[in-house]
Amino acid sequence: MSRVRRPPEELFADAREGDRSALARLLSLIERGGADARAIGRLSHPLSGGAYMVGLTGAPGAGKSTLTSSAISHLRSLEIEVAVLAIDPSSPFTGGAILGDRVRMQEHATDPGVFIRSMATRGHLGGLTLATPEAVRLLDAVGREWVLVETVGVGQVEVEIAGKADTTVVVVNPGWGDSVQANKAGLMEIADVFVINKADRKGADQTRRDLEQMLDLGDLGHDAWRPPIVSTIGTTGEGVPEMWEAVLSHRAHAESSGLLEQRRTQRLRDELREIVAERLRERARELCSGDRWDQLTDEVVAHHTDPWSAADEMLAPVDA
Amino acid sequence: MSRVRRPPEELFADAREGDRSALARLLSLIERGGADARAIGRLSHPLSGGAYMVGLTGAPGAGKSTLTSSAISHLRSLEIEVAVLAIDPSSPFTGGAILGDRVRMQEHATDPGVFIRSMATRGHLGGLTLATPEAVRLLDAVGREWVLVETVGVGQVEVEIAGKADTTVVVVNPGWGDSVQANKAGLMEIADVFVINKADRKGADQTRRDLEQMLDLGDLGHDAWRPPIVSTIGTTGEGVPEMWEAVLSHRAHAESSGLLEQRRTQRLRDELREIVAERLRERARELCSGDRWDQLTDEVVAHHTDPWSAADEMLAPVDA
Repeated sequence: MSRVRRPPEELFADAREGDRSALARLLSLIERGGADARAIGRLSHPLSGGAYMVGLTGAPGAGKSTLTSSAISHLRSLEIEVAVLAIDPSSPFTGGAILGDRVRMQEHATDPGVFIRSMATRGHLGGLTLATPEAVRLLDAVGREWVLVETVGVGQVEVEIAGKADTTVVVVNPGWGDSVQANKAGLMEIADVFVINKADRKGADQTRRDLEQMLDLGDLGHDAWRPPIVSTIGTTGEGVPEMWEAVLSHRAHAESSGLLEQRRTQRLRDELREIVAERLRERARELCSGDRWDQLTDEVVAHHTDPWSAADEMLAPVDA
Repeated sequence: MSRVRRPPEELFADAREGDRSALARLLSLIERGGADARAIGRLSHPLSGGAYMVGLTGAPGAGKSTLTSSAISHLRSLEIEVAVLAIDPSSPFTGGAILGDRVRMQEHATDPGVFIRSMATRGHLGGLTLATPEAVRLLDAVGREWVLVETVGVGQVEVEIAGKADTTVVVVNPGWGDSVQANKAGLMEIADVFVINKADRKGADQTRRDLEQMLDLGDLGHDAWRPPIVSTIGTTGEGVPEMWEAVLSHRAHAESSGLLEQRRTQRLRDELREIVAERLRERARELCSGDRWDQLTDEVVAHHTDPWSAADEMLAPVDA
């Protein structure tokens, strides 16, 4: 396969025709950020809006990948096509290949109705906060109707990404209450659907009671929606159709209540704000370098000028 | 006492004459950040450089305040004047009063040779990272020869602040190795002097051996300086004169080796970079608001424009 650099426009046209390797290349460009990522965004935005984004998150070891794989099998049995983004900032970047270590996902590797991709950031100044919506928008623009975004529910950024989906599924395990690895409060807040995975293990009933109680107590900001609790066994696929039904019923609620439109508007506003912040960070990096910067810092050190006057001078080009 | 708003220039002149309440007001303005904080910085910078800054940090409960109080008593017995900044982002802001809850500090409250102040940030966009050097610079400019900055060695920012002192004292306790509350690696890296406080407790000898071993193993980046280890009992003042001797001997080393100049240069460079970043954050906040911002986000949501083109337009004033 030739690795000749092809412009995003060409790759985008091919990806729209169903070329998976062009799609993979575009996602790599998004991971790198910069002008190419922006060009892809500009191409994708007018064509996006048709895909439905499902976030799936939970503590490490909750069985998210297994559950995702079972969900894919279920969707394929219904002849639904799906794209999966696995966000994993802690693992070394896999080079854009299909996740080699996730054996269960490999059964879908040859299915043209499934596209699976791990995501990391390689230099994108906006990090996953910006790279993820850009990737979802691209998958949307090339015609994927369902995009599943799987994240580890530990870091603030990862929980936020999952929470910005159209529907967010939070995966817990029996005995979840004792676990300290997950951002529990954060996860409670973003859940549209709760899944108790590994539900054949001891303590599943107690975990369900705990969740019900938390839902009874808290106004979780979901207005008329009370997150359903579904029990699953990811390894056998038990409960996965019910999980999917719960997602569909949240989708119906979100569409009819105006929640979906609200969320998407907020998502775009947040993204726009983040893009502005990223551009200013780029600008700061440019400004704080070069000969004049060195000179000015020397003058500050020598007390010939003060830091604020020096900053004024460095910032003159952006203070117009 | 009148709370009429007086300009920083007037307060500064009074503070230079020894007016403590003017000094306290100036520090409150620094905590708030913005134009007043910058004005104070501009007044202080040309007059600063005479003070010597000692950072004192360690895990919560290590006895830092008690030790600081004992250190003050020792310095006063040598007729040395001192200012203390207690940085405590976790505690609710005390309103700029002398730390009421630190009983041991109160014995110094009426001593004109001592100035004690707790620091927090009330709106300063640069946070403690910017407010602390600004406060130290002010204390320096009004003639304080020694400034002690006490921080909790937990957060990244707090450890960084302590590490930017001219001499940094890291306070540990017997059995420190088992503690999980402190940023241990960070503390090891910044220590110029180790203090084993509560040295009358079990395990003090072991802690000293552990520290010696770590110093044997690691190139801690201190070149010719090996951090001495001093044992103290803060409540009785035992070991405090030795701690002070260790600080003085590090000062002599730092001054003669060029390390002090190096550190101060780096400190000012870091601060200048941070000021530039803060100003850009202010700018982003301004840009992402107002009618045009609302209009543009609506256009993005309606897919009439894309987020990058909208960002271009919002950023036009700073991209000149």
